[in-house]
Amino acid sequence: MSMYRFTNDYSEAAHPDVLAALTATNLEGNFGYGLDGYCERAAACIRELCAAPDADVHFLVGGTQTNLTAVAAFLRPHEAVIAASTGHVCVHETGAIEATGHKCIAVACENGKLTPDDVRNVCAAHPDEHMVKPRLVYVSNTTEIGTVYTKEELEGLRAVCDELDLYLYLDGARLGSAIAAGGPDFAELARLCDAFYIGGTKNGALFGEALVILNDALKPDFRWIVKQHGGMLAKGWLLGVQFDTLLRDGLYLELARHANEQAQRLRSGIGMLGYAFACDSPSNQQFPILPDSVLEQLEGDFHWEVIGHPAPGMTEIRLVTSWATSPAAVSAFLRRLRELTEQA
Amino acid sequence: MSMYRFTNDYSEAAHPDVLAALTATNLEGNFGYGLDGYCERAAACIRELCAAPDADVHFLVGGTQTNLTAVAAFLRPHEAVIAASTGHVCVHETGAIEATGHKCIAVACENGKLTPDDVRNVCAAHPDEHMVKPRLVYVSNTTEIGTVYTKEELEGLRAVCDELDLYLYLDGARLGSAIAAGGPDFAELARLCDAFYIGGTKNGALFGEALVILNDALKPDFRWIVKQHGGMLAKGWLLGVQFDTLLRDGLYLELARHANEQAQRLRSGIGMLGYAFACDSPSNQQFPILPDSVLEQLEGDFHWEVIGHPAPGMTEIRLVTSWATSPAAVSAFLRRLRELTEQA
Amino acid sequence: MSMYRFTNDYSEAAHPDVLAALTATNLEGNFGYGLDGYCERAAACIRELCAAPDADVHFLVGGTQTNLTAVAAFLRPHEAVIAASTGHVCVHETGAIEATGHKCIAVACENGKLTPDDVRNVCAAHPDEHMVKPRLVYVSNTTEIGTVYTKEELEGLRAVCDELDLYLYLDGARLGSAIAAGGPDFAELARLCDAFYIGGTKNGALFGEALVILNDALKPDFRWIVKQHGGMLAKGWLLGVQFDTLLRDGLYLELARHANEQAQRLRSGIGMLGYAFACDSPSNQQFPILPDSVLEQLEGDFHWEVIGHPAPGMTEIRLVTSWATSPAAVSAFLRRLRELTEQA
Amino acid sequence: MSMYRFTNDYSEAAHPDVLAALTATNLEGNFGYGLDGYCERAAACIRELCAAPDADVHFLVGGTQTNLTAVAAFLRPHEAVIAASTGHVCVHETGAIEATGHKCIAVACENGKLTPDDVRNVCAAHPDEHMVKPRLVYVSNTTEIGTVYTKEELEGLRAVCDELDLYLYLDGARLGSAIAAGGPDFAELARLCDAFYIGGTKNGALFGEALVILNDALKPDFRWIVKQHGGMLAKGWLLGVQFDTLLRDGLYLELARHANEQAQRLRSGIGMLGYAFACDSPSNQQFPILPDSVLEQLEGDFHWEVIGHPAPGMTEIRLVTSWATSPAAVSAFLRRLRELTEQA
Repeated sequence: MSMYRFTNDYSEAAHPDVLAALTATNLEGNFGYGLDGYCERAAACIRELCAAPDADVHFLVGGTQTNLTAVAAFLRPHEAVIAASTGHVCVHETGAIEATGHKCIAVACENGKLTPDDVRNVCAAHPDEHMVKPRLVYVSNTTEIGTVYTKEELEGLRAVCDELDLYLYLDGARLGSAIAAGGPDFAELARLCDAFYIGGTKNGALFGEALVILNDALKPDFRWIVKQHGGMLAKGWLLGVQFDTLLRDGLYLELARHANEQAQRLRSGIGMLGYAFACDSPSNQQFPILPDSVLEQLEGDFHWEVIGHPAPGMTEIRLVTSWATSPAAVSAFLRRLRELTEQA
Repeated sequence: MSMYRFTNDYSEAAHPDVLAALTATNLEGNFGYGLDGYCERAAACIRELCAAPDADVHFLVGGTQTNLTAVAAFLRPHEAVIAASTGHVCVHETGAIEATGHKCIAVACENGKLTPDDVRNVCAAHPDEHMVKPRLVYVSNTTEIGTVYTKEELEGLRAVCDELDLYLYLDGARLGSAIAAGGPDFAELARLCDAFYIGGTKNGALFGEALVILNDALKPDFRWIVKQHGGMLAKGWLLGVQFDTLLRDGLYLELARHANEQAQRLRSGIGMLGYAFACDSPSNQQFPILPDSVLEQLEGDFHWEVIGHPAPGMTEIRLVTSWATSPAAVSAFLRRLRELTEQA
Repeated sequence: MSMYRFTNDYSEAAHPDVLAALTATNLEGNFGYGLDGYCERAAACIRELCAAPDADVHFLVGGTQTNLTAVAAFLRPHEAVIAASTGHVCVHETGAIEATGHKCIAVACENGKLTPDDVRNVCAAHPDEHMVKPRLVYVSNTTEIGTVYTKEELEGLRAVCDELDLYLYLDGARLGSAIAAGGPDFAELARLCDAFYIGGTKNGALFGEALVILNDALKPDFRWIVKQHGGMLAKGWLLGVQFDTLLRDGLYLELARHANEQAQRLRSGIGMLGYAFACDSPSNQQFPILPDSVLEQLEGDFHWEVIGHPAPGMTEIRLVTSWATSPAAVSAFLRRLRELTEQA
Repeated sequence: MSMYRFTNDYSEAAHPDVLAALTATNLEGNFGYGLDGYCERAAACIRELCAAPDADVHFLVGGTQTNLTAVAAFLRPHEAVIAASTGHVCVHETGAIEATGHKCIAVACENGKLTPDDVRNVCAAHPDEHMVKPRLVYVSNTTEIGTVYTKEELEGLRAVCDELDLYLYLDGARLGSAIAAGGPDFAELARLCDAFYIGGTKNGALFGEALVILNDALKPDFRWIVKQHGGMLAKGWLLGVQFDTLLRDGLYLELARHANEQAQRLRSGIGMLGYAFACDSPSNQQFPILPDSVLEQLEGDFHWEVIGHPAPGMTEIRLVTSWATSPAAVSAFLRRLRELTEQA
C-alpha cells in the first residue's frame, strides 16, 4: 500500500454519501446565503436531535471561523474567554479571538479539561474594571488531546456558569468522536450549553460546522456577524445538503464510531507492545510515545504529527483516525510496529 | 419550464467539469491548509497566465473574506480604503473592512468607476494626522453595476497610485465577465495592480477566490492573516482542484463568455422592446427599468433582484446570467416580456 | 499687542478659577481612577443640572476618546453610527470609530445638521444582514460648522430614534456655546438623548469631558471600556475638581456666553464691512469669506484656520473665540480689517 | 496626622515645581496637539539625556494608553506581545492590547522578569501560521513587583531580540525609581530598546508619559495612531511643560531617589521587626507579609493595597512611596508597627 496518513482527520474530502448528495443537487437553482430548503431541513433535523425546538442553527465553513464569529457575536468588548491552555482558541487559531478584540485567559489544565474550580479561580482573579471580565467558558469535546468531557463534568461547568453569570460554549470540531466515546449527546449538550457546534469537516463533510445557539440572549443578529467576518457562504445550501445527509439517518455517529474503533485498535495494539501514551484518550486521537529509532523506520509508510520529545530518544506523536481510515491501514501500522519493536 | 433565477450568478453549484475533478480526487489523502499539489499546480497556472513568476497566490473561500483579509494584511491601522460608494466593500459586506479597524472612504462615482481625480481629491482632503491616511484604492471589475474598467482607466489609476504612494487592489468577484467583455486580462492586471483576485464562486466553482499578490511589500506572512480571520480551509486542496480545472485549459473564460452572451441577448431583446437601462453594461449583469405591471406578471416564472424605483410605476431590476444560464431561459424571458409588452 | 489666536478654543490652558481649585487640592491624597469625592460631587451636580438622578456620569480626558469609548461600549460589532458628513467622528478622529470596528455612515447635510428624514433614509438603505445595522445617531451641538440644533430639531431626532430603535448620542465638545446660543439645556438634553457629553476642554478646563448616560441599557460596565481604551485617568480627581468648579455656580455657561458674545461681535463687524459667511452661526465659531489680499496683511497679527477657497482670490477662514478671548483682541481684528478693507 | 496613603504613587497631584510651571504658562496662547515649543524643548531634552539625537519623542497622557498605542503602531495584526504574566499589559489593562487585536503571551516568571530563555521558549512554541507570531518583548522597569532589570539583563534580552527579530519595548511607568535603584539610565535604555517610555504620572507630573522611539522602522505615522486611539491631548503643551520641568535639571531623578529612600526605610524598618517580604525590591514598592491582627490596627491611620494571603492569618500588602511621601509618615508607620508588634 502507499503511504497512509494518520496526520489528521481531514486528509480526505467527503464521505461518498455526502458527495453523492452534492452531485445530485449540483445544478438545481437555490437561494444563496443559507436561505434555502436544505439548510432549513438540516436545521430542523438538528433541532430535533437536540430536543431544542427554539434553537437557532447557523452553518459555517470552518472551526476557527465559527469560534471567532461566536465570540464576536456573544461578548462585549471587555469580556473574555476562559479556556484550557491547550484549547484550540488559545493557541492554534493565530490569535483569531484576540483579533476580534477579546482576551483569551489560558488555564493550565490536566487532561485538557477545565474544572469548575479553574473557572472560579479565574473569576476571583478578575474582580474589577482594571481587568477583563471573564464571560465565556470555552471547552472542546473531544479536547485537543483526545480526552472527553463526561456529562457530569459538563454539568459541573454549567452550574458554575450559572453561579457566575458565564456562558458555556462547546467547540465540537470532533463532536462525533466525543459522543461515540460516551460523551454527552446532542440533547444533553443542548440542555447544558449556551451554544455549541457540530463539526462536519473532521467527520464526513467536505467542510462545514453547524452552530447551535440555545440561549435566547445570544441569538439576535447573528447573521450580521457571520457576514461581517466573511463567513457567509454564497452557496450556503452546500452546507445544508451535507449536514442533512450526515445527520438525517445517523451517518454522522456511524462515521465517528468507525474512527474511534480504529483509534482504539491502534491504542491497544501499541499498548500491548509496551509503549506508553501521553494521555488516556478514548477518542480518535492517540498520543503514543515511541522510540525515535522505530519512528525513523515507520516514516516512509505512514505519516503523523510530532508533538514533542518527552525523553531522550523518545518522541510523542499524534495518530488520528477518521471515517476514512481503513482497518487495513491500522493493521499495517501495527504489524510494522511489532516487527520493528521485535527487531530492536 | 420551472421558475428561472436571474437573481444572481451563484444559484447553481459547480460546473460539471469542476464537480468531476472534485469527485475524482475525493478519497485521495492530501496535506491540509493549501499545502498540497493541487494548490501548487493551480498557483503555477495563475502565475503563468499573469506572466508573473514571483506572484504569491492564495486561495480563499469567499469574496468578502478575501477583501477583508487583504485589507487587514496590507494596511496599518490608520490607513484607509478609497472606493466607489457603490463598491462592495462600502456597502454589502456588513462593515467587514471597518471590523478590521479600517475606514472605507466612499466616493460618489458615475458608472461605479473611480477616476484618478477622485483619488486625488480624497487624498487632498486627508492631509494630516487628524484624519485617516488613504492608502489602498479598491476597484472591482466588473463593477457592482456591471460596468467594466478599460486598460486605459486602470493605467490611469495605477499612475495616480504611484504618484501618491497608494496600493491598487482589484476585486475580481466577476473578473471572468470583465475580461470576456474586453477588460484587462490576467497579465495586464498583474502589471497594473498590487493585488487582485480571480473570482471562482460566480464563475464555475463551488466556491473559491484566488488572490494574486504582486507587490513584494504585501507578501510577508499573508497566511497568518488568512488563518487569523478564519479563512484557511482545512481541506485546502478543494480550492486548488477547482482553480486548476477552471484555469488550466481556458474553461474559466469560456464560461464567462457564455454568461456575457446571454446577458447581451437579454440587453438587446429588452432594449428592442423600448425599455431603458439604468446603466450601460457590457457584462453579465443588466439593470433594465420595467413597468411594475409587467413585472407582476413575470414574477411567477422568473426571479430577479429589485434595485429601486426610479419613477412612479417603474422598477429597476437586476438580471444576472452565469455559466449555468440556459439560452432557453433567456429566450423564454424575452418571449414573455414581448407578450406582456404587446398586451399593455 | 502680540499675535492673537482665533485658531481654536483650546489655545489657553485653564480658567483661573479652575487652576486655583487644582492648586488648592494639589497635595491632598485622593483615591485614583475617579473614585474620589470630587468626581462624586461633580457627578451629583451634573445629575442635578440634568434633572436626572439616575444618570451615570463618567469623566474622560478628551473628546475623541469619549466618542470612541461610548461607541465601543454602546454598540454591537455590526452596528453603525449615522452622522453628518461634517461630523467630527466622520472626519477628524483619524478613524477612531472604525478602529473600534464600527462603520460611520456619513450623510451629506445642510448646515451640518442631521434631519429625521436623513436618518430614515439611511435605515431604509440598510435593510438586511449584508449591510451594517444603523444604531446610533451622532450629532454635535454646536455642530462642527457652528450651527446649533434647536430643541425642536432634537425632539424630531428623538422621535425617529424611538421609531427605529436607535440611540441618540450628542457630542458636546462645544456644548456651552450651544446652550448659551439658545440650544437645549442640560435637562432637555438629558430628556432627549441616550447619552451626551459636556465638553470641558474648549470651555475653561485644562482638559476633560463629562459623559452623561441616561439610557439604562447603556450603563453596565462602562468603566471597563474606559480602561480598555486607555481613558481612565490615574489622578481622576483632576477631572472632578475641574467640573465641580465649572458647573457648581454657573461658571461654565458664563464662559460660553462670553465666547459667543465675542464671536457675535466678530460676525456683525465683519458683516458690516460687506463680507459674507459660509454659514449662519450663532455660536463661537465664525466662517467668514475674505479676500486673500486682506488676509495676507492680517496674517502677522492674527491667527486662524483656513477652511477652503470658495472663489478665486477668496478664502473661507474659521475664527474661534473662547472664554479667554479678550474684547480688545476682537476690536483690534475688526479695526485692522476695516482699515484693510477701506484701503482696498 | 491624618490617614496616610501608601496605596500608590499617584495619590497626590503634581510636584510644586511642575504646578508652578503650569501656572506660569496658563494664559499663554499655544498651538495644540503637541506642536508647541514646550513639547519641542522637552523632546530635545529627552534626546540629549538619551544621547539619541534621532529619537522620536511623543507625549501621552497615561500608561495604558501609551502601551496600547505603541503596540497598535508597531505590530502587524498577527504579531504578538511576550510579557511576564505579572506584566501590566497582561492583567491590569482590561485587555487593552487585545482590544487592538493583538495577543499577549504571558510567561510565568520569577521576580517578574523575563529572561532570554523565556523569550526563546515562546518563539520555539510558535513556529508557523497556525499560531500568532511573537514580535515584541514587553518589560517594565521597575517591574510590577518592584524588582529592577539590570543593564546586563536588558543586554541579554536585546541580544535575543536581535537573534529572533523581535522588538524590545520597555514600560517605564516607574522608570525614575528603576534608574534611581541602579537600573539602566536613559542613554543605556536608548541603546538597548526599540522604544521605551518615561513615566511622569507616578513621579511628579499631574499626568503624562514620554514615549521614546529609537528604531526607525517604528517611527512612521505614529501621531496618526495616537490620534486614532484618542490619545492626542488638545492642549498638548501641558505635557511639554511638565516634562521640561521634570527633566531639564534633574528633578525627575531627585524625586525618584526620595521615593526609593523612603521605601528602603520602610523595608529595613519592617525587616528589623522580623517580618518577611514577598520579594526583594530595591525600589519604591515594598511587599511585606504582615499578621492580620496587626494590619487591623494599622488600618485607620494608613492605607495600602492587599495583594494576597500567603498563609493563614498573614496578608501580603503593597506599600508604595513617592516624591510626596513625607519621612514623617514613614516614621509614623514604623513606630506604630513596632508598638503593635511588641504588644503581640
